[in-house]
Amino acid sequence: MSNKYLRSGIAASVLCAASVLNVTASAGTDFTGAKADKNHYNVIFHIDAGGEATIKKTLNNIENLLNDPRLKGKVNVELLANSKGFAVYVKNNGFEEKLAHLQKEGVILSQCANTLKELHVDRKDLYPFISIVPSGMGEITIRESQGWAYIHPTPPDTAL
Amino acid sequence: MSNKYLRSGIAASVLCAASVLNVTASAGTDFTGAKADKNHYNVIFHIDAGGEATIKKTLNNIENLLNDPRLKGKVNVELLANSKGFAVYVKNNGFEEKLAHLQKEGVILSQCANTLKELHVDRKDLYPFISIVPSGMGEITIRESQGWAYIHPTPPDTAL
Amino acid sequence: MSNKYLRSGIAASVLCAASVLNVTASAGTDFTGAKADKNHYNVIFHIDAGGEATIKKTLNNIENLLNDPRLKGKVNVELLANSKGFAVYVKNNGFEEKLAHLQKEGVILSQCANTLKELHVDRKDLYPFISIVPSGMGEITIRESQGWAYIHPTPPDTAL
Repeated sequence: MSNKYLRSGIAASVLCAASVLNVTASAGTDFTGAKADKNHYNVIFHIDAGGEATIKKTLNNIENLLNDPRLKGKVNVELLANSKGFAVYVKNNGFEEKLAHLQKEGVILSQCANTLKELHVDRKDLYPFISIVPSGMGEITIRESQGWAYIHPTPPDTAL
Repeated sequence: MSNKYLRSGIAASVLCAASVLNVTASAGTDFTGAKADKNHYNVIFHIDAGGEATIKKTLNNIENLLNDPRLKGKVNVELLANSKGFAVYVKNNGFEEKLAHLQKEGVILSQCANTLKELHVDRKDLYPFISIVPSGMGEITIRESQGWAYIHPTPPDTAL
Repeated sequence: MSNKYLRSGIAASVLCAASVLNVTASAGTDFTGAKADKNHYNVIFHIDAGGEATIKKTLNNIENLLNDPRLKGKVNVELLANSKGFAVYVKNNGFEEKLAHLQKEGVILSQCANTLKELHVDRKDLYPFISIVPSGMGEITIRESQGWAYIHPTPPDTAL
């Protein structure tokens, strides 16, 4: 579905607002989201693709998580970058302020050491305030084994 | 690997059926899948990209899960849409019948409220039978913290 | 961010090495990765896209996990292919040696049976040493329900 298709779909829906399936019209309205029944939550976000849109989306996702009224003040987050995702930490990428803000809110900013070696990235070209971890895959594995949730946003198709 | 490459790869393999590594020829044949040793399973599917192919694939993945002989009648599913993934719930997108069918089978259809605000999507343009949750990221986090499995299908590259 | 943009970003950062935010300059340096406090770890990798770059990245991710000094000798891995991801197991795709090596290291190589049916793939066109499981979605669900970590690498954008 191209954006164009999507938009025309929305436009069409406005014209056909009455064409709702009666059988399902009232379903789903009772559910307003899972209930947060714990005192604390941990989440590891995985970014392994570059591109401004991917970075923006991932950081926005984290911000939205921190602001979810169900979880406000109860969530601990780590952002793990590997592969082309190291772009999120490259100096002067335009996201320094946003990253510093997230870090102030407690977000751990971690970078896979293997990626630096394999993609010939100089540590000095990344923001100094991030952390290097032995491997991104190991980091995710350990976190999940400790009960952390794993969230991996899809890189947006910039063609859409 | 383009589809063309893939196809020629398959064609070539037919010609070379005898070129099997002896060392591994018999390995793996004993394993026929993990054993389902629980009475109940919960899974949250994450869709955060639009496009007809992505929607089709994700809904098909859910259908296949519900029909896995190991899990038949034991799986509870939620489909969480955020970012461009809201397209799965846009009226007249061609998936109303499929969504209604999945909902009848117990699938919770949930949509991130932040996305509606940020992408200026009118709730009225989405199917009335879906549920709005405070944030998609919070929803996934809570579900995983409660032991739900997380599955995030990759949007298919329509160019392939 | 195109690779070009990224590179110019790196180039620019070399010129501006002094422009570090003082407030965050020392943060993050204490953290060197999550501590592995368990004797054993299980991980299911999900591949559901084709293409040489996707396959190479995913297998490389697994190799890096197996070699993480924190987890060496403690990790059990399954690679689950479904949808276009079946390409990882197509004979003569150039990854036979790598797959055989991973299998020797204990990695379970599993393929979704539904995919074979739906995409009309002949079992004989796949390496004989892999395992067929009833459904990929069911396999992931059962594994996660048993405490396995789930990792789904993003298919690289070959245009970058």
